[in-house]
Amino acid sequence: MKLSISDLQNWYSQNKQQILRDFFTFLSFPSISTDPAYAVDCRKTAEWLRSYLAEIGLNATLWEGSGHPCVFATHMHAKNKPTLLIYHHYDVQPVDPLELWKTPPFSPNVKDNKVFARGASDNKGQCFYTLTALKAFFTLCRNADINLKIFIEGEEESGEKGTIDILSRHGKELQADYLLIIDAGVPNPHTPAITLGIRGMCAMEVSVRNSSTDLHSGVHGGIALNPNRILATALGKLWDSDGKVAIEGFYDDVAPILRDELSQLTLDFDEAKYKEQFGIHALSQEKGISPIEANWLRPTLEINGMYGGYTGTGFKTVIPAIAHAKISCRLVPNQDPMRVCRLLELFLRRHIPIGVDLSVEFDHGAPAFRTSMDSDVVKLVKGAFEDVFTSPSQFILCGASIPIVIELAKVTSAQIALIGMGMDTDDIHAPNENFGLDRLEKGFLTMGMILNRLANG
Amino acid sequence: MKLSISDLQNWYSQNKQQILRDFFTFLSFPSISTDPAYAVDCRKTAEWLRSYLAEIGLNATLWEGSGHPCVFATHMHAKNKPTLLIYHHYDVQPVDPLELWKTPPFSPNVKDNKVFARGASDNKGQCFYTLTALKAFFTLCRNADINLKIFIEGEEESGEKGTIDILSRHGKELQADYLLIIDAGVPNPHTPAITLGIRGMCAMEVSVRNSSTDLHSGVHGGIALNPNRILATALGKLWDSDGKVAIEGFYDDVAPILRDELSQLTLDFDEAKYKEQFGIHALSQEKGISPIEANWLRPTLEINGMYGGYTGTGFKTVIPAIAHAKISCRLVPNQDPMRVCRLLELFLRRHIPIGVDLSVEFDHGAPAFRTSMDSDVVKLVKGAFEDVFTSPSQFILCGASIPIVIELAKVTSAQIALIGMGMDTDDIHAPNENFGLDRLEKGFLTMGMILNRLANG
Repeated sequence: MKLSISDLQNWYSQNKQQILRDFFTFLSFPSISTDPAYAVDCRKTAEWLRSYLAEIGLNATLWEGSGHPCVFATHMHAKNKPTLLIYHHYDVQPVDPLELWKTPPFSPNVKDNKVFARGASDNKGQCFYTLTALKAFFTLCRNADINLKIFIEGEEESGEKGTIDILSRHGKELQADYLLIIDAGVPNPHTPAITLGIRGMCAMEVSVRNSSTDLHSGVHGGIALNPNRILATALGKLWDSDGKVAIEGFYDDVAPILRDELSQLTLDFDEAKYKEQFGIHALSQEKGISPIEANWLRPTLEINGMYGGYTGTGFKTVIPAIAHAKISCRLVPNQDPMRVCRLLELFLRRHIPIGVDLSVEFDHGAPAFRTSMDSDVVKLVKGAFEDVFTSPSQFILCGASIPIVIELAKVTSAQIALIGMGMDTDDIHAPNENFGLDRLEKGFLTMGMILNRLANG
Repeated sequence: MKLSISDLQNWYSQNKQQILRDFFTFLSFPSISTDPAYAVDCRKTAEWLRSYLAEIGLNATLWEGSGHPCVFATHMHAKNKPTLLIYHHYDVQPVDPLELWKTPPFSPNVKDNKVFARGASDNKGQCFYTLTALKAFFTLCRNADINLKIFIEGEEESGEKGTIDILSRHGKELQADYLLIIDAGVPNPHTPAITLGIRGMCAMEVSVRNSSTDLHSGVHGGIALNPNRILATALGKLWDSDGKVAIEGFYDDVAPILRDELSQLTLDFDEAKYKEQFGIHALSQEKGISPIEANWLRPTLEINGMYGGYTGTGFKTVIPAIAHAKISCRLVPNQDPMRVCRLLELFLRRHIPIGVDLSVEFDHGAPAFRTSMDSDVVKLVKGAFEDVFTSPSQFILCGASIPIVIELAKVTSAQIALIGMGMDTDDIHAPNENFGLDRLEKGFLTMGMILNRLANG
C-alpha cells in the first residue's frame, strides 16, 4: 500500500492529543546520562521506549553494556530490499542553571506552539516524531514490505563508553544499507536540509593544585600563589591576538578550507540577526574566517566550565587549594582527539609555574565526520523532503558533534545521511530548551514519507 | 584582691570539663554570617553569648542593626580608672568545600590536643578564652574595681554593614581608654606577639555576560565569544611578569617599605618549612620583595572565587551566558578601597571586547590600620604576656584585615592593641579549622592577667 502525504496528515490530526500526551510522558523522564544520580531514570526511559516500539509491532529489546542501556527494534519483512537503520538518543543534558528555566525542565508545557522541556529538541523531540511516524506507518500499512532497524542509545551526552561496548557486541545486528542519524537540523521550518559533516570532539578535565588545603587570603596573600590566578593566566594564553588557538601544533592536521567544498554548501549567516536572536555582544572572530566557516570548517576550543574557590552567596576571602576547568575542542577532519589532549597538556604545563600540580584528563572524544551527497540514502531523503516541503533541500555542515557517528559508520557499513528538524533557536543544552510543534509534524511527515518510499521503492 | 598566675591556673584545671562543654556549645552554632540561610543561627549565637555574660554578672544586652545583632556587656565599677573595651566576633566563614572536612564543621571534636571546628580559632576560640577569663576573674574577684566593656559583633566575615549601623548609634557607649582587638596571632605557642598593623580590604564581585542564554558549544562555537574565555583572558593580565598587580595606578598611594619600620618588626619566615606545612609548590613572588614583606607591607589581589558554565559531575558542552569572579585586594596604608575598585573596573573594561556586559560591584572594604608600640595599652598587654610567657613579646604586622578596626578607632577614641592566640596553621577560613587547647589556656591566662593588672593598676 502506498501512502499519500494527506493520509499521514489526516492520521496526525486525528491522533494529535494522544501524540502530545505520549510526547510529554517521554519528556518527563529526567534522563540526564552524565550524572550517576539519574541512572534509574535513564533505564526507565529506555524501558518506556522499548514498550512503545513493541506496541507498534516491532521486535523490540534492550541491549545492556557498562552504562545506560540501548533500545533496539526491528521489522525485517522484505527479502532483497535494502535495510534502513535509524539512530536517535534518549538521554539529555543536565539542566543547570536551573534558576534560568521559566518552567521546570521535566514538566513539559506548550507556549506559542512550542514545547518547552529539557530534550524537547535534542533528541527526544526528534526521536518522538520518528516513533510517531513508525506508529502511523504500521497502523496504516500493517505487514509492510520493509526492512527497518531502530537504535536509540542513552549516552550521547556523556561520552558513550557503554554504548561503544554495546556496538562492539551487536555489530552484526546493526548491519544496514542506509543509516539515518536523526540528530541534525534545518535552517528554518520551511527549508529542508541534509547535513554532510559534523565536527569531532575532545573533552578534557583540567585541574591545578598549589596547596594541600584552602588558605586565608590575608594570612597567605602575597606568599602563596593562588591556583585561580595560575589557571586564569594559563587559560588566558590559549588564544592569540588573531583569535586563533595558540596551542602549538593545534592546526597541524587541519586542511585549508577549499572553495570547491564551500560551493556545495548553503553558507547563509546573518550576523545582525544572529546577535539579536541570542543577545550576543561579541563574536569570537578568527581572523580571515567568516563566522559560519569558523563554526563548520575550523576547530575551536571552549572553556565549558571554570571554577575555583568560593562561588556561593556573599564573600569568602580564600586562596583555594585547587582550581578547575572543563575544556572541549570541536575538531575538523584529520584532527585526532587524543593528540589534541596531549597538546593542551603540554601547553598548560609550559604556562604554569614549575612544581604546581597540573592534571589534564581526557574525558571523551571522537574525530570529525564527512559523508557524500551522491548516495542512495541522500536520494531517498531528498525525495521525502520534496513530498513534504516546497523549498529545495540545502546541503549544510554542522558545528556540533555526534561522536557515535564514526563508530556507527564502521559497524553498520551503511551509506549515511544526517538529518533532523532542530534549529539553533531551540536552546539545546541551555535553559528553556524548546521545539516547534510545526517541526514535530514536519519531522513526522518526512519520516512517514521515507518509510513509504522505502516500502514501495 | 590581686590574683597570681597560679590562682588562674588552678581555677582553669578545676573547671576544665565545664569550660570545654561550654566551648563546644559555642562552636556548634553554625553562625555563618554571609549566608542569609544562617541568620537565625547567628541570632541564637548572640543570645547564648548575652546570657553567658549575664550569668558571669555583667550587664549584657543585644544591640540591633540592619544585620546580625551585636552583643554588648559592661562592668563599670571603678571611678577614675581607665576603661578597657574588648572586641571579638561570633560569626564564622562558610564551610565549603565541605567534602574536605575530616569531621563535621559544627560538631567540634578534639584530636592531638586541638579542637577541630569552623570558628575553633577565628574567632570563637579567641572569644571563648576571653569569656572564660571573665568568668574566672569575676568568680575569684567579685565586685572588682574595674571598668570593662565587651563588644562581640556578628558580621566580621561578611562586610559589617549592620555592625557599622550599630556603631553609629552606640558610639558613646563604646567610648574607652584602651581597646583590645583580639583577633590576631602569635608566631608559635611559646612566643607572645603584639600586632601593630593589619592590611585593608576591597572585596568585589565581577561578572561578564555575552549572551542572553547559555549556548551549545558545537552549534555556536567559533561564532559566539565565550564569557569564560573573556574573563580568563582579562584576569590573566592582572599580574605582570614581575608578579606585580598590573592595574594602572594600583600602587600610586603605596608608600615604599622603610628600613626603620622593618627594624622594629620580627620578620622571621622559613620558606622551606612554610611550603612543607601547607603543601605549597609555588610562591607568588613579587620581584624584589621577600614573602613576609609581601604579606605585611604590600597590597595583593586575589581571585577568591571564579566560576562560569558547567561545574558539576561529568561534562556539559556549553558556552555559558555569564562568567563570574569574586576578587579581593589586601591594601596597605593610604590605599582607598573605593579607588581600587574603580581602577579594577577600568582595567577589566580595557581588557574585554567592546560591547560585552561587565559588572564590577564593590562588596565591602576598609583601609589598612597601624597602631603605635608606645602606648599604655601595649604596656598593659606586654606586662600580662610577661606573667604568662617566658619569651619576650614580638612586634609583628598581619597580612589579614579586620575592617571594623578603623571604625572602632574612630568611635572609641581609644589606644589600640591587636593581640590574639591564632596561628597560621589553624586553617582559618579553610576546611578542618582548629585551635590548640594549649593556646586556649594561654589566652585565658593572658586575659586573666590583663584583667588583674587593670583592677590593681
